[in-house]
Amino acid sequence: MVTLHGYFRSSAAYRTRIALNLKGIAYDQRSYHLRKGEQHGPALRALNPAGLVPVLEDGPVVLTQSLAIIEYLDETHPTPAFLPKEPIGRARVRGLALAIAADIHPINNTRVLGYLEKQLGLDQAARDAWARNWIEIGFRALETTLAGSKETGRFCHGDTPGLADICLVPQVANAARVNTDMAPYPTIGRIVAACLALPAFQKAQPQNQPDAEP
Amino acid sequence: MVTLHGYFRSSAAYRTRIALNLKGIAYDQRSYHLRKGEQHGPALRALNPAGLVPVLEDGPVVLTQSLAIIEYLDETHPTPAFLPKEPIGRARVRGLALAIAADIHPINNTRVLGYLEKQLGLDQAARDAWARNWIEIGFRALETTLAGSKETGRFCHGDTPGLADICLVPQVANAARVNTDMAPYPTIGRIVAACLALPAFQKAQPQNQPDAEP
Repeated sequence: MVTLHGYFRSSAAYRTRIALNLKGIAYDQRSYHLRKGEQHGPALRALNPAGLVPVLEDGPVVLTQSLAIIEYLDETHPTPAFLPKEPIGRARVRGLALAIAADIHPINNTRVLGYLEKQLGLDQAARDAWARNWIEIGFRALETTLAGSKETGRFCHGDTPGLADICLVPQVANAARVNTDMAPYPTIGRIVAACLALPAFQKAQPQNQPDAEP
Repeated sequence: MVTLHGYFRSSAAYRTRIALNLKGIAYDQRSYHLRKGEQHGPALRALNPAGLVPVLEDGPVVLTQSLAIIEYLDETHPTPAFLPKEPIGRARVRGLALAIAADIHPINNTRVLGYLEKQLGLDQAARDAWARNWIEIGFRALETTLAGSKETGRFCHGDTPGLADICLVPQVANAARVNTDMAPYPTIGRIVAACLALPAFQKAQPQNQPDAEP
C-alpha cells in the first residue's frame, strides 16, 4: 500500500499527488497541519528527520523530497513517462522543474514565511510582497524560456504532461494565494489551463483533498 | 568544447565543477561576478533568462540548473556513476541532494541575501544568522539521516562519491563562510573530509578557480 504523508496546501505534496494520479497509483493520505506545526511531531519525524512533507511510504520504502519521489515513481512505473527519452530533453524538463522547485518554492514556504513573521516582524503585506517578488522573478524567466522554445507544446515539453508541468501547476496555485498578476505570463497560463483540464491534476488540487480547509 | 558559465563562490557552480572533474571532462570557464550583478548582463541572459549560474554549454546544447546539468553529465558519461542503479537507492541519493539544493541553498543565495539587506534593512550579523538558521536546520536533519542509515558509507551513499556528495561539499563551504559550528555534524564532517581528499573535489574548490578573490 502506498501512503502519502502531506498537507492539502503544501505545494510539494500537491506535486506528488499529481504524479501518483497520472501514474494511476492508488494511495492513502495522512495529513499534517503545517501551520499548527504537526510536521514537527514524532510521527512524521520518525519518517523524515527534516520534518517536511511530502513523505511517500511504498511498503517498507520511505522516500522524501518531492522531485526524488516523482523520479522514483517514473522509474518504477514508466508509463506515462514524466521525462523524454534523450538526455538533452530530460535536462530541459528537469531544468524547468528545478527553476520552480529550487528557485521559487523554497524561498516562500511555510517555515521561511514563519521566520519573516516571528524573527523579523514582517506583517502579512510584507510577507506577501516577499513571496510575489520571487514568484515574479521566476515566472518572468520561465515565461521567456517556455515562449521562446520549439520544445514547448501543449505542455512544458511537447504534448504530454511531465515533471515540469507537475511543478508548475502547484506554483501557480501558490501565486494566486498572494495575488500575483498572471497577465505577463500567457504561456504559463495556457499550459496550466491544459493541465487542469485533466482529471489527474483536478483530483490533486488542494480544495479536493480530505484535509482541505476554506 | 564544454564551457561552464559560473562564479568561483557560487555553490551551484561549484557542484557542477566537481561533477565535470569526476567525469574527467575538460571545460573552459567564464565568470560572472555575482555581487557586481554581472549575471544580469546580456551575455548570460541570452543563455539563461533567469540570469543565474551555472549554465553549461556543450557544443550547441545550453543547459541550466546544476542538478539537471549533473544528471545530464551522468546520463551522457555514465562512468563513474553519480547515482546507484536501483530506484530506491537513486531516490535516496536524489533526496539527500535535494535536501541541500532545494531546502538549504536557495534560501541563502546572493539574491535572497541582497533582498534581506536592501529591502528589509538587515545588517551583516542578521543576514548571517538567517543563513546559519537554514543551514543548521538542514544539517541537523541530514546528520540524523546519514548517521542512522546503513546505506551511508565512506560517502553519502556507499563508498564512491555521487550526487549527494557533490551537493554536500559546497554547502559545507558556505556554512563556513557564516561561521557555522560543525561540531554537531560529525558524519557530514567525515564525508566532506573524504571528498576533499580527492583531486576532483580539490580542483573544484572556490579558492582554486581562475576568478577567485581573497
